[in-house]
Amino acid sequence: MLIGEVVGTVVATRKDEKLVGLKFQVVREVDERNVPTGKYVVAVDAVGAGRGDRVLYAAGSSARQTTLTDGRPADAVIMAIVDSWDVEGEAIWSEQAPVGEGGA
Amino acid sequence: MLIGEVVGTVVATRKDEKLVGLKFQVVREVDERNVPTGKYVVAVDAVGAGRGDRVLYAAGSSARQTTLTDGRPADAVIMAIVDSWDVEGEAIWSEQAPVGEGGA
Amino acid sequence: MLIGEVVGTVVATRKDEKLVGLKFQVVREVDERNVPTGKYVVAVDAVGAGRGDRVLYAAGSSARQTTLTDGRPADAVIMAIVDSWDVEGEAIWSEQAPVGEGGA
Amino acid sequence: MLIGEVVGTVVATRKDEKLVGLKFQVVREVDERNVPTGKYVVAVDAVGAGRGDRVLYAAGSSARQTTLTDGRPADAVIMAIVDSWDVEGEAIWSEQAPVGEGGA
Amino acid sequence: MLIGEVVGTVVATRKDEKLVGLKFQVVREVDERNVPTGKYVVAVDAVGAGRGDRVLYAAGSSARQTTLTDGRPADAVIMAIVDSWDVEGEAIWSEQAPVGEGGA
Repeated sequence: MLIGEVVGTVVATRKDEKLVGLKFQVVREVDERNVPTGKYVVAVDAVGAGRGDRVLYAAGSSARQTTLTDGRPADAVIMAIVDSWDVEGEAIWSEQAPVGEGGA
Repeated sequence: MLIGEVVGTVVATRKDEKLVGLKFQVVREVDERNVPTGKYVVAVDAVGAGRGDRVLYAAGSSARQTTLTDGRPADAVIMAIVDSWDVEGEAIWSEQAPVGEGGA
Repeated sequence: MLIGEVVGTVVATRKDEKLVGLKFQVVREVDERNVPTGKYVVAVDAVGAGRGDRVLYAAGSSARQTTLTDGRPADAVIMAIVDSWDVEGEAIWSEQAPVGEGGA
Repeated sequence: MLIGEVVGTVVATRKDEKLVGLKFQVVREVDERNVPTGKYVVAVDAVGAGRGDRVLYAAGSSARQTTLTDGRPADAVIMAIVDSWDVEGEAIWSEQAPVGEGGA
Repeated sequence: MLIGEVVGTVVATRKDEKLVGLKFQVVREVDERNVPTGKYVVAVDAVGAGRGDRVLYAAGSSARQTTLTDGRPADAVIMAIVDSWDVEGEAIWSEQAPVGEGGA
């Protein structure tokens, strides 16, 4: 999985019928220090994430292992909202009090 | 998924029999700000997209989860035509009135 | 899928038994303007492609969806020979009269 | 597989129900000379790895082949703790006495 | 598949039980001209390759299609030892008499 920030939403009314009812979030990838990498992905939201949340997303066939995405043509899914993470003993992110944001 | 622009079509009459009847579109990848990334993909069109459309495409085994592509040797599929998307509260694209196109 | 040019062949007599009888082609990736990207892949040939052909190849599990590659440890397959393609209304390649070759 | 160093942990209490009970480790990728590549991944820990360990991790659907990750939406798993490795006859890493660390 | 050179071995005694008995080789990726690309992978050896051999390796779910790797959490496998290959009519490599080695 990779860590990303939810930054927006994609609206698509004309789509494969298996995609009806899914929400597509625009997710910006960040590195392990919470610095944006310049990459993004559009992921199905399986956990109700909101703008500004740091999330974990899975790609490929693993993205179809949630109940929501089973058998659907989606190759990326937000499967967790991140509360916090640390690297080498330093707190990089905490939802209540973000630290180190973009501070590499 | 990633967002792309449909820019062309590939014609291939000599192909694996499982591919007969599929339409192959040339799709240019754009980033979350609608700026071309320099990458492209040839994707099976499952939704009737046309040139200039912004689309969502899925890769890998997920590309075989549409009714059209089930069991076929295709690793990329256009599974939705994008109506609009926004990033950080800003409208990046709307089919009726494109904004921010390539304006990074 | 991506577009590539068949440029050579790999000979390997010592291999997993499931690979016996498959032909391995060296394929150079080109971009949507027919310019080499610097990447390559070794792909199983499911369609009888020859040197100089532009082909479509699929990667990952999709590469095992041809009758030839079903259940075999191959992660790339040539599943179509390209007759022609166009980008933004311009003919980029036609087998009878190649145009725009490497001319970006 | 790739080799990585376990450098941290991700806490996520709001997640897909299939992920309950899994531990998420932040893993920094290193190259074959034990030099960080700048990439990272968040992987499910199937072997009880700790901070500073060099580990092997698998990605994609292969990450779901451990008993721990079967059927879960995870696309990366730590499936082995590395004792040692060598390249061209030179010992690059040994858990008891690391050598060549970052020394490229 | 990609072509690589076997350059070393990884020892890991603490691992997922499904990995017991597999040999992990360090493989340096080379391009179609036999020039190292700077990338590497750790692959399960399904064919008894040795140091210095040029090999073909498959990634992703295809890596689990050998009898040796079926159902195991491995995402890369050496499935063939290369005897020789050619590009644009030029012999790039032959096991008995290597040519063009690293000669970019």
